[in-house]
Amino acid sequence: MTKASIITIGDELLIGQVIDTNSTWMAQELNKIGIQVSRRVAVGDSWSDIWAALDEETSRSQIVLVTGGLGPTSDDITKELLCKYFGGTMVRNNEVETHVRNLFANVLMKPMPDRNISQAMVPDVCKVLLNPLGTAPGMLFEKNNYILISLPGVPFEMKGIMCEHALPILAKKFTGRPLEHRTLLTSGIGESALADLVEDIEKDLPTGIQLAYLPNFNMVRLRLTANENADLKLLDEYFQKLCEITAPYLVVNSDVSLEEVVIDLLKRAGKRMATAESCTGGYIAHRLTRIPGVSSVFEGSAVSYSNEAKQEILQVSKNTLENHGAVSEQVVREMLTGVLKLMKVDFALSVSGVLGPGGGTPEKPVGTVWIAVGSLKRVETKKFQLRYNRENNMQVVCIHALDMLRKMIIED
Amino acid sequence: MTKASIITIGDELLIGQVIDTNSTWMAQELNKIGIQVSRRVAVGDSWSDIWAALDEETSRSQIVLVTGGLGPTSDDITKELLCKYFGGTMVRNNEVETHVRNLFANVLMKPMPDRNISQAMVPDVCKVLLNPLGTAPGMLFEKNNYILISLPGVPFEMKGIMCEHALPILAKKFTGRPLEHRTLLTSGIGESALADLVEDIEKDLPTGIQLAYLPNFNMVRLRLTANENADLKLLDEYFQKLCEITAPYLVVNSDVSLEEVVIDLLKRAGKRMATAESCTGGYIAHRLTRIPGVSSVFEGSAVSYSNEAKQEILQVSKNTLENHGAVSEQVVREMLTGVLKLMKVDFALSVSGVLGPGGGTPEKPVGTVWIAVGSLKRVETKKFQLRYNRENNMQVVCIHALDMLRKMIIED
Repeated sequence: MTKASIITIGDELLIGQVIDTNSTWMAQELNKIGIQVSRRVAVGDSWSDIWAALDEETSRSQIVLVTGGLGPTSDDITKELLCKYFGGTMVRNNEVETHVRNLFANVLMKPMPDRNISQAMVPDVCKVLLNPLGTAPGMLFEKNNYILISLPGVPFEMKGIMCEHALPILAKKFTGRPLEHRTLLTSGIGESALADLVEDIEKDLPTGIQLAYLPNFNMVRLRLTANENADLKLLDEYFQKLCEITAPYLVVNSDVSLEEVVIDLLKRAGKRMATAESCTGGYIAHRLTRIPGVSSVFEGSAVSYSNEAKQEILQVSKNTLENHGAVSEQVVREMLTGVLKLMKVDFALSVSGVLGPGGGTPEKPVGTVWIAVGSLKRVETKKFQLRYNRENNMQVVCIHALDMLRKMIIED
Repeated sequence: MTKASIITIGDELLIGQVIDTNSTWMAQELNKIGIQVSRRVAVGDSWSDIWAALDEETSRSQIVLVTGGLGPTSDDITKELLCKYFGGTMVRNNEVETHVRNLFANVLMKPMPDRNISQAMVPDVCKVLLNPLGTAPGMLFEKNNYILISLPGVPFEMKGIMCEHALPILAKKFTGRPLEHRTLLTSGIGESALADLVEDIEKDLPTGIQLAYLPNFNMVRLRLTANENADLKLLDEYFQKLCEITAPYLVVNSDVSLEEVVIDLLKRAGKRMATAESCTGGYIAHRLTRIPGVSSVFEGSAVSYSNEAKQEILQVSKNTLENHGAVSEQVVREMLTGVLKLMKVDFALSVSGVLGPGGGTPEKPVGTVWIAVGSLKRVETKKFQLRYNRENNMQVVCIHALDMLRKMIIED
């Protein structure tokens, strides 16, 4: 299988100012056309560090993708460096210049700063890949033993050039069978217990098929991967065995998210849902509405962060709040009933808790969370004592709430 | 300054199944104690690839941090490999065994699978760093010219060992002045125009002080960085100059997020806010409630994804919806008034739009978004035509809405 390296350039990647999402997306897209990423390297805006990374990765991989350092400002040195690296000269490219002028005139609709003309200067030894969504062009350099493609670091610009130019070129040149994955998702069983459960199947796996465990809070994803020489019929057979033995914990037998599973169940049942969120502050609604097409099953959410909002919007009684506190079984029950009636939906979930870092008390320490899920005819509640930080507690609550709702829709 | 490399291990990083957030966090924490990350490398669960990465990074950096591959399942090979790499033997460690047994008995409260005993086997040539939140211990290997620390890939376990053991050890051994950063955030000016604006200051920067541009949709962050030899008084002077020249676009002169700026403005004014969200589906509320302590200024959100929800919860009139459509100035105005009255807050924002990929019409194509911000005495509305994908459109809408609200609070 063709091997690729990804080099990401930028000091912001090394001081922790931004999270690198580009490499993840690029790896997914390369996989789809049968190209395997074997290394990812991040270096700063330093001439010698970039040069060293180019030397190493071009000697290792047939494809080297480079992102970042193509902007019009002085900390962007990638273009000049690549020009030197490949022994070229910078020349003005009319096509790029026309494109940049058009972009400012017709899309950005503002005067073009002079320095953007520098975007039209490119090495004479590269093939230019026009940037459909920005000013910095992509560049392709071809050598006997490798292809190097340089792309902007801005994610949507990088994706634009990849989809429009780079991926079609690479797919045409390197045709191989893609890595084949089969993925299943479990809930309610830890990684070790799951490993015990599937031990016999794992030991028996044929050459070229590998099992990986991907735990994430309450859920573990199992992934079977077949390399280009493996028998795909065997891949499906072993995947079937895994699905059967994990059946009591199985959420879904494909690589989709828990929220997609819930949405799909609702669609098939012709039902609609809503959420009532206190401590999660809209996060569960957000996770659902990230998915395109959710409007056919999702009505909305009442984010009742304050006690007043719980009373005004969800009709939680003042008495209940005073007697039991906002983080209590009684309150999530009333929030649930409130949102079911307000939104006139078949199913809903409600959450109230203390996610931290502040707000804990001796009786209800940080991490105490109540979740309710259900319909007007059946309600289930559960208390959790979480032990992560605010951000992770929020994720775990979301996973538990959606998983409880998933089970209830199935049982309905 | 002491240089560090980060090696992340796991096939899931190379096929794009997970986004690497570990490196970002680690880089931030190392920076704080004066250690600079100069390279980050991601490799798969492959013996030869991990070995090669160890050879390269240990010859380059004084500190090498390795994450991943420490679980109890068969795809986890890091521990065995490090044992070989440092010429040790695997031995049973009583301290780790006791810790793992306690964790199952008292925290996870379930029987321990036998394979977890393997977590207590460690190389006899390492110092064990107990994992406060999980079973896989961290390991520290010390050589004449470098220190290597191996950590689990699960983010909260990695953070637990870093905070409790690794960072204090590294801080004690490598004391240097941290890299000093000064950061400001602008809105409403592009990267190139900003570069023109600050050109004279940038050209004049003393040795050891560098300027970086970090654009993100409608906002550009400028970062001045002083290395360990630079004069910090000069750093502050030049930062002051940058703040003055960018004043018309300046959002904040520190490294905080836009939502933190809005929350801080509200706190200082003693005002409260709410959101009414259609297409953003709770994302703006989520961005605000990620911030601890937001409860003193944030009342809640009405996520009215459907037209019925807009009518029922926010009292948007049926007539308005029928005559103008859900994505219209009139509807966001009524949503705003509705949420201001419902939540009894001083300020609110409302959004309605088509974020894609589906749902567009010839009159209101994908990317059409209306935003309203204001109070009961003053409302401002604005229409946007966005050109990204669903996920990015959501981010841009959030930035625009919060920035419009920020300006209104300041002007109030």
